[in-house]
Amino acid sequence: MSVLTTEPDAVPAGEEPPDTGERHRLTAVTGLAALSLDAMASVAYGPEAIVLVLAGAGARGLGFTLPVTLAIAALLAVLVASYRQVIAAFPDGGGAYAVARAHLGIRTGLVAAASLVLDYVLNVAVAVTAGVAALTSVFPGLYGHRLWLCLAVLALITGVNLRGIVESARAFIVPTAVFISAIFVLIAVGLFRDHPVSTASAAGHASVVADNATTVGALLLLKAFASGCAALTGVEAIANAVPSFRVPRTRRAQRAEIALGAVLGLMLIGLSVLIGRFHLQPVEGVTVLAQLADAALGHNAAFYVIQFATMILLALSANTSFGGLPVLLKLLARDDHAPHVFALKADRQVHRHGVLALAAVSAALLVFSGGDTNTLVPMFAIGVFVGFTIAQVGMVRHWRAQRGRGWRGKALLNGGGALLTGVAAVIVTASKFTEGAWLIVLALPALVAAFEAVRRAYGRIDTRLGLGLLPRAPHRERSLVIVPVSALSRLTSEALTAAASLGDEVRAVSVCAPDPEDRVRDRAFARSWRDWDPGVELVRLTPERHGLGRPIAAYVRAVAAAEPGTRVTVLIPEAEPERLWQRLLQNQRGAVVAHAVRRETDAVICRLRFRL
Amino acid sequence: MSVLTTEPDAVPAGEEPPDTGERHRLTAVTGLAALSLDAMASVAYGPEAIVLVLAGAGARGLGFTLPVTLAIAALLAVLVASYRQVIAAFPDGGGAYAVARAHLGIRTGLVAAASLVLDYVLNVAVAVTAGVAALTSVFPGLYGHRLWLCLAVLALITGVNLRGIVESARAFIVPTAVFISAIFVLIAVGLFRDHPVSTASAAGHASVVADNATTVGALLLLKAFASGCAALTGVEAIANAVPSFRVPRTRRAQRAEIALGAVLGLMLIGLSVLIGRFHLQPVEGVTVLAQLADAALGHNAAFYVIQFATMILLALSANTSFGGLPVLLKLLARDDHAPHVFALKADRQVHRHGVLALAAVSAALLVFSGGDTNTLVPMFAIGVFVGFTIAQVGMVRHWRAQRGRGWRGKALLNGGGALLTGVAAVIVTASKFTEGAWLIVLALPALVAAFEAVRRAYGRIDTRLGLGLLPRAPHRERSLVIVPVSALSRLTSEALTAAASLGDEVRAVSVCAPDPEDRVRDRAFARSWRDWDPGVELVRLTPERHGLGRPIAAYVRAVAAAEPGTRVTVLIPEAEPERLWQRLLQNQRGAVVAHAVRRETDAVICRLRFRL
Repeated sequence: MSVLTTEPDAVPAGEEPPDTGERHRLTAVTGLAALSLDAMASVAYGPEAIVLVLAGAGARGLGFTLPVTLAIAALLAVLVASYRQVIAAFPDGGGAYAVARAHLGIRTGLVAAASLVLDYVLNVAVAVTAGVAALTSVFPGLYGHRLWLCLAVLALITGVNLRGIVESARAFIVPTAVFISAIFVLIAVGLFRDHPVSTASAAGHASVVADNATTVGALLLLKAFASGCAALTGVEAIANAVPSFRVPRTRRAQRAEIALGAVLGLMLIGLSVLIGRFHLQPVEGVTVLAQLADAALGHNAAFYVIQFATMILLALSANTSFGGLPVLLKLLARDDHAPHVFALKADRQVHRHGVLALAAVSAALLVFSGGDTNTLVPMFAIGVFVGFTIAQVGMVRHWRAQRGRGWRGKALLNGGGALLTGVAAVIVTASKFTEGAWLIVLALPALVAAFEAVRRAYGRIDTRLGLGLLPRAPHRERSLVIVPVSALSRLTSEALTAAASLGDEVRAVSVCAPDPEDRVRDRAFARSWRDWDPGVELVRLTPERHGLGRPIAAYVRAVAAAEPGTRVTVLIPEAEPERLWQRLLQNQRGAVVAHAVRRETDAVICRLRFRL
Repeated sequence: MSVLTTEPDAVPAGEEPPDTGERHRLTAVTGLAALSLDAMASVAYGPEAIVLVLAGAGARGLGFTLPVTLAIAALLAVLVASYRQVIAAFPDGGGAYAVARAHLGIRTGLVAAASLVLDYVLNVAVAVTAGVAALTSVFPGLYGHRLWLCLAVLALITGVNLRGIVESARAFIVPTAVFISAIFVLIAVGLFRDHPVSTASAAGHASVVADNATTVGALLLLKAFASGCAALTGVEAIANAVPSFRVPRTRRAQRAEIALGAVLGLMLIGLSVLIGRFHLQPVEGVTVLAQLADAALGHNAAFYVIQFATMILLALSANTSFGGLPVLLKLLARDDHAPHVFALKADRQVHRHGVLALAAVSAALLVFSGGDTNTLVPMFAIGVFVGFTIAQVGMVRHWRAQRGRGWRGKALLNGGGALLTGVAAVIVTASKFTEGAWLIVLALPALVAAFEAVRRAYGRIDTRLGLGLLPRAPHRERSLVIVPVSALSRLTSEALTAAASLGDEVRAVSVCAPDPEDRVRDRAFARSWRDWDPGVELVRLTPERHGLGRPIAAYVRAVAAAEPGTRVTVLIPEAEPERLWQRLLQNQRGAVVAHAVRRETDAVICRLRFRL
């Protein structure tokens, strides 16, 4: 499984690196680049979310873009500071789930876990839609097909992850660096202009700004604030991955965290300044970022560079969910809260289930949102804030428990953060309830309930299995092997040889369908069996009704009932052609019999595959 | 499997009736009702196909509706007559495939089979789209969603067939009777009117009649004729099902065939007379039949009765494909031309594959045609005519071979029919090539090629298996059973008991992942194993890389190589919770190991399921 968020180098599924040395681990700089992807990418939809809300109050509303952004930047500062403390307190990483489990009890831990699961899923959906929005801003013609584009991109990412190929964290450094520098260039250049160079991309698009300039109410500002907070997603990534850093891990991680905060904050503020400066009007079908690029750098190569950098970064950030979710699920599985499958490392089949599940849910979300980022962003924000809040409340508990030097200050800091994010969560939920937030309100408790149900189920299973206690010693029983046969061939003799080796007694069973032609075939078969004389009794079953599996299963049941002390085994021979398409030619008799015997008896089922 | 076209009473999959007596079989009348479904249903789209082509030449073109229809009626007469002869010559039914196999060699038989397969698929698509068209004619608001409606109806029919519930042929009698009488009432009433009572349904729909009245060329008339011939589909059904009739089968079947021809012919001619009388103009979104109902009976209850009767009949006629195709595939499978799965009677799993395959292909066709009947009808016609032509050429051969009384006349009749249908096939293909006919032109030979490839593959497989010759006698070998274990539980002891009963030697194998925590777990496990002391050696594998299946498979290979005389069996224990959702909780270790061992070794795989 790809384990991006907890290992320096994720690797193809099916293998895992022999324990890697320090030099493979991350420094503050590489760590920043490798782990800040999601946070940076959120710059692409964060400011947009603010502007769109404010646009509801017309041009005057848009005037409040900067203040709202500054508030968000302040919250960012608080978050970064408090995550610095999380890093110090939990050098083993793990994030909200770990913190909550440690200080707030299992139930809260599960709430945190559920919110994280939702985040991973929503991150895929949001990143994909935002990425496609960046694309359609360049090629407006594609706007009509954005849902299909989203699904296509999702399919692509899924395909890559199915093949188990996950780029090493290092591979993220370049695009992240390109994106960051591009944004800063945009801001720098923009600050030297008094009016937009170009508005080409926005031209001919319907403005979404309300004409009737209503008064700008506090609620509107709160909504804008809450939506904009989506820009803060990903701030926690570094704290989750402390073990990936080079020693002194904590210090390096903390530096990276602060750098992340600084860069993200500057980008947000810078962009919002430009938005005000250029009196930018959000329009349908063109992202705010695209308009800013236009206005600051003109509708030229630079514009395209920014759009494509954005798109690629967003695609990669969607990809990180495919790395992160399995890690979380593994933790949950180890605590018996998720199917143990997820704890089964390094197996492609299993890995695939996770990837496909994530893809399916994300696809559903994409369809639900019609490929529109701004429907998804609020839902995303809710999950993120729930996580933030829980983590920080946990930290408060942590400090109170330790009562170390200046614990009050630290506790206060985390407490303040918790309050802010908690309020934000409530606002987003309340203000966006009808527009999709209800989905989260339902999904979160549902997930928690599921986690607990799974835990209980495992408890029952373990007691049934008598796990932990010494089971009674195994003993040898008389073994009877039953072999379904329908014709004489190498396969038959191969099967009987295997059966003779496995059983004290062997019986061959043939089923004769209740129609004349088959009766004839059956008699002929019996004759040739006598001629062959393999020294194995041939039991001929002649049911009244058609069917292959049921009669055999019934016979097996009867035998098992008649000879209690005996262990009955059904050995099913199957010819396996070498070419794959030829497998389609196999009469599924084997599968049918196995299915029936499995469902209706307790016999052991052996399948002998005879390669052709 | 539902076997509508060859048995009087199709039955739920999974069972088949004990051979049914005469009284269950069909009389001429019931047979007509039970087997004429498809033919009658084609009245719903046949005339429409004609009118639409002629509309291309404006009002003057539409004037030729009656003559074209008369030509088609004439062809119908020829077909009926020649199928009367088919019935006499092939009392065992089987239709084109049987005739062609008998008189024209395997290759031609396969062409006929391929055309039949295409017919079954296209019949589903055409019937569904036409049924939905009947519905949207009543509720124009639904017209925009017709593709989704089609897929919904298809899903419904598929669902019904998946459950294996197929109505007995008798159930078709009522709707067919209702439909036929409704149409005749429509015609009768219509003949007493000089001008339409109502044009409500057509009102406000775009006419598709070309304004520039061009000259009506011969080619146009041929195209109209060819398209209209779609109305002849289903004429062969009775000939395919002779064995379902009461004795004297041949005579009753022949009567039914003639009745079918008469009824169908009268309906076609009657409708086309009305079309001329009411100067009906085909419009988009309303079927011709709907307009006629409107014109003759008025936009009242009667109108709705006709539309719904049509819809239901068409849905049922789509359903017949789900009954017919399996029968054909069974015949093909018996001749080694299709996977033997299809010859495996009376098993739901298998039955499902067929149903789902048919549904999938039909769905693809629906999407391809955008839910428009008139794109599909020509394709449908091609397949049908190829079948007709082959069947009749075969009959000509048949008569020449027999040289019975008046064989020349009979041969001439069939020859004429073959010529007409052959020409029709060529015309449709040529005139509709770009509009979808190319699909058939590709699919037909592709199917034939596939049939032959399958046959060859089976040939190779049989020789490899040494089928037919007596295989060498089975012998006993030393048996070593390997049991993968990971913890001590009832399951473990159960598994070792089974293994001990099956093998001369038993070895337990555990895999230790290359990380510290797992090493600890592994050592603890080894200790508890020693405490338990089951008398079975525990082999502890410690691969460098993560992975469960591969190490075990590698070990099995090594053992098998080291001890040539020994038969190695891998016994995989799995706990099976009682509730279905709990199955999700199973760690897929068993599946993973089985997968790897199956792929990388020749060992027999036993799976022991321990019910909780």
